[in-house]
Amino acid sequence: MKSDVLIIGGSASGITTALTAKAHYPDKEFLVVRREKEVFIPCGIPYIFGSLENSAQDVIPDQLLTDAGIKLMLDEISSIDCDKKVCKTANNEEINFEKLVIATGSRPVVPGWLKGADLENVFTIPKDKEYIDKAISTLENAQKIVVIGGGFIGVEMSDELNKKGKDVTIVEVLPHLLGIVFDDEVTAKVEEVLSSRGIHIKTGSGVKEILGTDGKVSEVELQSGERLEADAVILSMGYRPNTELAKDSGIEINKFGFIEVDEYMRTSKPDIVAVGDCAEKRDFITRKLSRVMLASVACAESRIAGINLYRWSNLKTFSGTIPVFSTAIGNNGFGAAGITENLARKEGLDVVTAIFQGMDRHPGKLSDMHPQTVKLIAAKKTGMLVGGSVMGGLSTGELVNLIGLAIQNRMTVSSIFTTQMGSHPLLTASPAAYPLIKAAEIALGKIG
Amino acid sequence: MKSDVLIIGGSASGITTALTAKAHYPDKEFLVVRREKEVFIPCGIPYIFGSLENSAQDVIPDQLLTDAGIKLMLDEISSIDCDKKVCKTANNEEINFEKLVIATGSRPVVPGWLKGADLENVFTIPKDKEYIDKAISTLENAQKIVVIGGGFIGVEMSDELNKKGKDVTIVEVLPHLLGIVFDDEVTAKVEEVLSSRGIHIKTGSGVKEILGTDGKVSEVELQSGERLEADAVILSMGYRPNTELAKDSGIEINKFGFIEVDEYMRTSKPDIVAVGDCAEKRDFITRKLSRVMLASVACAESRIAGINLYRWSNLKTFSGTIPVFSTAIGNNGFGAAGITENLARKEGLDVVTAIFQGMDRHPGKLSDMHPQTVKLIAAKKTGMLVGGSVMGGLSTGELVNLIGLAIQNRMTVSSIFTTQMGSHPLLTASPAAYPLIKAAEIALGKIG
Repeated sequence: MKSDVLIIGGSASGITTALTAKAHYPDKEFLVVRREKEVFIPCGIPYIFGSLENSAQDVIPDQLLTDAGIKLMLDEISSIDCDKKVCKTANNEEINFEKLVIATGSRPVVPGWLKGADLENVFTIPKDKEYIDKAISTLENAQKIVVIGGGFIGVEMSDELNKKGKDVTIVEVLPHLLGIVFDDEVTAKVEEVLSSRGIHIKTGSGVKEILGTDGKVSEVELQSGERLEADAVILSMGYRPNTELAKDSGIEINKFGFIEVDEYMRTSKPDIVAVGDCAEKRDFITRKLSRVMLASVACAESRIAGINLYRWSNLKTFSGTIPVFSTAIGNNGFGAAGITENLARKEGLDVVTAIFQGMDRHPGKLSDMHPQTVKLIAAKKTGMLVGGSVMGGLSTGELVNLIGLAIQNRMTVSSIFTTQMGSHPLLTASPAAYPLIKAAEIALGKIG
Repeated sequence: MKSDVLIIGGSASGITTALTAKAHYPDKEFLVVRREKEVFIPCGIPYIFGSLENSAQDVIPDQLLTDAGIKLMLDEISSIDCDKKVCKTANNEEINFEKLVIATGSRPVVPGWLKGADLENVFTIPKDKEYIDKAISTLENAQKIVVIGGGFIGVEMSDELNKKGKDVTIVEVLPHLLGIVFDDEVTAKVEEVLSSRGIHIKTGSGVKEILGTDGKVSEVELQSGERLEADAVILSMGYRPNTELAKDSGIEINKFGFIEVDEYMRTSKPDIVAVGDCAEKRDFITRKLSRVMLASVACAESRIAGINLYRWSNLKTFSGTIPVFSTAIGNNGFGAAGITENLARKEGLDVVTAIFQGMDRHPGKLSDMHPQTVKLIAAKKTGMLVGGSVMGGLSTGELVNLIGLAIQNRMTVSSIFTTQMGSHPLLTASPAAYPLIKAAEIALGKIG
């Protein structure tokens, strides 16, 4: 069989590339091939364990594709012949293509050294509905749960399981939870909020081994020798790109295992693009290879790939990954964009930082006011914004997007300082104390 | 007496100019002269009538100034001698200055033709605590209230009084409430939400006269002849700049009555700047004089004036007014930035518009999800964003700031389309359906 455009993978990036490209090239045939019967909204997965009623509420409807005239096939691509432009599937189908989109995503890391990871009641968090459904039903009967890995998935899973009344301990080898994404003032607050909700936190604690009885997990042993009782364990130790298929097909892979791509998401092979978690990332600020995996970045890449698929447009390139993260614990929002102060210093960039503490309503006596703290990180020499973070209420997601947008526009603290930001008592900080602008003012004072 | 810097007016722009300039020129003496014993957070005033417990909760503490080493005097400047650089006060003080900041603000419009505006129980909404306190205590005993003027103050006042159990009718001469700021799809929703909350709306209805009995308001007569019973009337028919003092002192005033200023907020007289509601506005997009009055714009002007007061910096100019409005009715947020489609068409700008309807959480089954609609307005020839609006939940304030920031950075729908926006299930739309980006995509499709 044949499809003008063949997309391997049906999660966020596969869907977004297909939809974007189909809208721009409506005369072309599109076929998405995916392994999974149903596909999750990836960032919603932790919330299936608590806030949502069931996993069906987190499923992306196939109608999104079919309504756009995109075909869908449940199968697995087993090989790509890049020269002949044909793929083979597990069911022994051959699919010829003009353009191939590789959107094979990522899968949970289970370190080879970790003993006991294969015990019953030890779960990872893959984008796999059957697996997740099974994990949920098992966890219903578990009381003590140890979450290994304090990144976003670990933190969000812990909070959701805690909401369900579980006794949750989160174990992280780094000194702080979310320590890669946030500087210390934010991680301290994250830990404070999680603790206040009754979650036990073990940071700076490497895991030695997962122990079991009769093939079923019973304890987690830390490097310190301490043992934590566990009815179940969640492994949230990161994700790695799914790139074996690409590699086996002769497509270049970078040193971190991602598929090499240029600013148009083109791989080393003609007419083959890669998008999403499996595609190479280069940091917007440091210009170094990055390992960040975010649905928002995946979607941005997918839009670029989709629009440039047949007609190349030099106005629409991917200018580098600007990670924009956010999460919420209760009514506390946490977000970061660009690089952290820690990373800036590690990379040898001379930066100034500025922190402004304010409120997300004005006057502060309004009943739903939440404290709001914005930190900006700027290059000392140029004043250019390189990163920032927000601790606040539920407007944090969009406020951190403002920082991300400022970075993408290469704004300086000077240009941010003179920016006009709207404000409203019930929706934002006061116009005289708008946190981005006040932080920019403080940074400006340090640059002189 | 003498002060290096003399600031006339102690509301948002006076305070922000004083604080910004003092931070940059700490060796200079600063004196703020104002008439009012206490000063309100201006945008908070409507909320004193409902959401706040009392007017004291909306007062800006003087400590903000005094802690920064800025002096404060309660008096009224009665004349400015621009050549001799000295002001006279109502109490017959003479104050010499090096630099003068005019931040005299605005006051409510009461049209000369409106009969009955002087009746008892007819109130305007000035930035005057004594007046507001009196209005509030009178309104406690009023049941039927007619609000004349359906701009932001009128709409917000109506909703707050409605919360207090009053029977509120809002009368607007234009076809729609908030019709200057929003296009029809937003005004329709605003009216729907207000109606559903029990507020009576009379749009396209000019007021003929306010009628009274024994000197006290009893009815409002519309142009149609219809009469509305009224125990009290709120006049929210706009504000006009307070510029008599400047005008009498020989400072140039523009045709709309605002003090003429350049991009550094300098007036026609050396060493005298003007900021806030009394200072001239020029629209960022149309480059025409504008009459918009917003605390956020006032604060941006004030920061520019403050930083440039003694040492001129050509990097820090005011590049034109970008109105960024937002408001909330219940958990419904409404916001707009830049110019409306209506204004663009009236000004002869060939525009494309795009509307994307989505949700402010993902998946949409999350319990606090609110529908979210973003409209973008872009110049057809260049794709440059000239305006946009948001209807959504409580993140609307920051989302509309994103549109404002994109306009200020002269982004096109193409550059917005390829932007990376962060997302999180509990805080934002989904990465695949982020409303700004999806609306940009739709607009892009119309430009080709």
